[in-house]
Amino acid sequence: FRPTIIVHGGARQFTPDTRDLVQEGVKAAARQGYAELTKGGSAMDAVVAAVSAMEDNTVFNAGHGSRLNLKGQVEADAIVIDGRNLGSGAVCGLQGCSNPVQLARLVMEKTNHCLLTADGAREFMESQGIAAVPSSELVTERARIELEQHVKFSSAVENLVAPRSAPPPSSSCDTVGAVAMDANGNLAAATSTGGITAKLPGRVGDSPIIGSGAYADNTVGAVSTTGCGESIMKVCLARRVGELLEKGKTAQEAAEHALEFMSGRVGGAAGVIVLSQYGNAGACEVGHHFITENMAWAAIDEGQLRWGVDPGQEMNEII
Amino acid sequence: FRPTIIVHGGARQFTPDTRDLVQEGVKAAARQGYAELTKGGSAMDAVVAAVSAMEDNTVFNAGHGSRLNLKGQVEADAIVIDGRNLGSGAVCGLQGCSNPVQLARLVMEKTNHCLLTADGAREFMESQGIAAVPSSELVTERARIELEQHVKFSSAVENLVAPRSAPPPSSSCDTVGAVAMDANGNLAAATSTGGITAKLPGRVGDSPIIGSGAYADNTVGAVSTTGCGESIMKVCLARRVGELLEKGKTAQEAAEHALEFMSGRVGGAAGVIVLSQYGNAGACEVGHHFITENMAWAAIDEGQLRWGVDPGQEMNEII
Repeated sequence: FRPTIIVHGGARQFTPDTRDLVQEGVKAAARQGYAELTKGGSAMDAVVAAVSAMEDNTVFNAGHGSRLNLKGQVEADAIVIDGRNLGSGAVCGLQGCSNPVQLARLVMEKTNHCLLTADGAREFMESQGIAAVPSSELVTERARIELEQHVKFSSAVENLVAPRSAPPPSSSCDTVGAVAMDANGNLAAATSTGGITAKLPGRVGDSPIIGSGAYADNTVGAVSTTGCGESIMKVCLARRVGELLEKGKTAQEAAEHALEFMSGRVGGAAGVIVLSQYGNAGACEVGHHFITENMAWAAIDEGQLRWGVDPGQEMNEII
Repeated sequence: FRPTIIVHGGARQFTPDTRDLVQEGVKAAARQGYAELTKGGSAMDAVVAAVSAMEDNTVFNAGHGSRLNLKGQVEADAIVIDGRNLGSGAVCGLQGCSNPVQLARLVMEKTNHCLLTADGAREFMESQGIAAVPSSELVTERARIELEQHVKFSSAVENLVAPRSAPPPSSSCDTVGAVAMDANGNLAAATSTGGITAKLPGRVGDSPIIGSGAYADNTVGAVSTTGCGESIMKVCLARRVGELLEKGKTAQEAAEHALEFMSGRVGGAAGVIVLSQYGNAGACEVGHHFITENMAWAAIDEGQLRWGVDPGQEMNEII
């Protein structure tokens, strides 16, 4: 089987100052995930490495650099899914964790559960020998400013008793994620996020939810999503992409049709990355689509790195 | 449209001392939900009333009578879904709440979010003027004994270094749920649970997850599930029932096929209740199926109450 990975760095409208950083970040993350695959690692190793790289990069809304809730806290959501057996681990509402995706993997490997929340997730983290980090280590200046702007904007709207208008563009979501196929033909998916700026404390989005933030099944395909979490959850977006693959749609068609259904039925914008089940030639199809202004993505397949940020854009280089 | 409701009181092996109580409990809950429908209430009013009745009844594992986590605490998960617009509200890991399903409805109606967890959910509860109740009000003697037995059983197994065997029958799940269609042809679903005995603190199961613990879409049908939460989540069981309805299966077939898929792909046992989309005659199909020893269910349709506990059992009376 031909090792393949695709990652996303969030669907949103990128501001000029972050655009290049996000682009470089997804390329680096795809390379780190792909390096796992070429040295014999599993699809799970690859997606965790790729997502960890983005959690460590403060330009992304996951791990370091996570958006802040109304109280100025980082509350992380993350998930991993193993396409071999549908095994899954996830965490939500988790404070003080540098790499939530790695803890999600430990939930899968070390417990009989799929999802741990809040203090329980944190106690589990400490039981695994991972120390909680002080909040200040995860909070960036960018996140703090975004929260301030958002709160100011909301109060302004409320004071005017005006009809609800859209929040400032910078506050849209940019969850990160990765899906991969390894040399054994196994699939995996991972997604990680700090959620939306100024969310109510305790708000959990789509990212840690099987079938919403991610899906993976060797007999179907693997999916990671990003965007308006509530819209994604209402239509089980990731599972819906899987349903379309089962019906014979290509990875690209499945991504497009699922997003079309979502925006038609419940509104909201999002993006998805998809790998189809491996075909006879040992290669899987790669697809991605977004109905936001931008989505940073990068894919590596047969020694070729492809990436883009704008609709229809596809750059590439040989690696 | 012909108002219809079906409720479940959990899929498990019932012990002789609880069997009658559970049976009476689901019948009473179905009647309470149906009463909302006959006085012009919405499907949402009906499922919340039915589930609240079971949360108030200590024989069920939801609200009062919830199973306890490893620390002896009640941590509740609950969800509601409105089939008109796929609107949903849910809570998870919530302590000190008498009627989690009512709070789930408030999340849907009063916030822009779908899911609130732990302390955040509790703060939201208090902001809505609902006082937290002391843990002791929710903890029953039955739940305490079950936790003790489970912990004893687990230590025994660990001390023997024996292969993992099944936990005692009393510790299986018995989440409650309801789905209904109102006179306007609208569908709704609700599910509520205390989770599994001796769960890790913070463990979240399938119940508060759209597409796992419940699903509702006027154009498809409505579903509530109960059973091994981790298995249900891995296959998005409720959404999967919806997919089968979309493919033209009857409510009964969809319930059976989805459970067959689950047990074949990931193992575990569960039960589901289903209403199909309303047909031309203004009536929806009612289905239920379980692959556990027992599932308590009760349905009311055209003035007839039907119920059962054992596989194949169906009692009925005119109301």
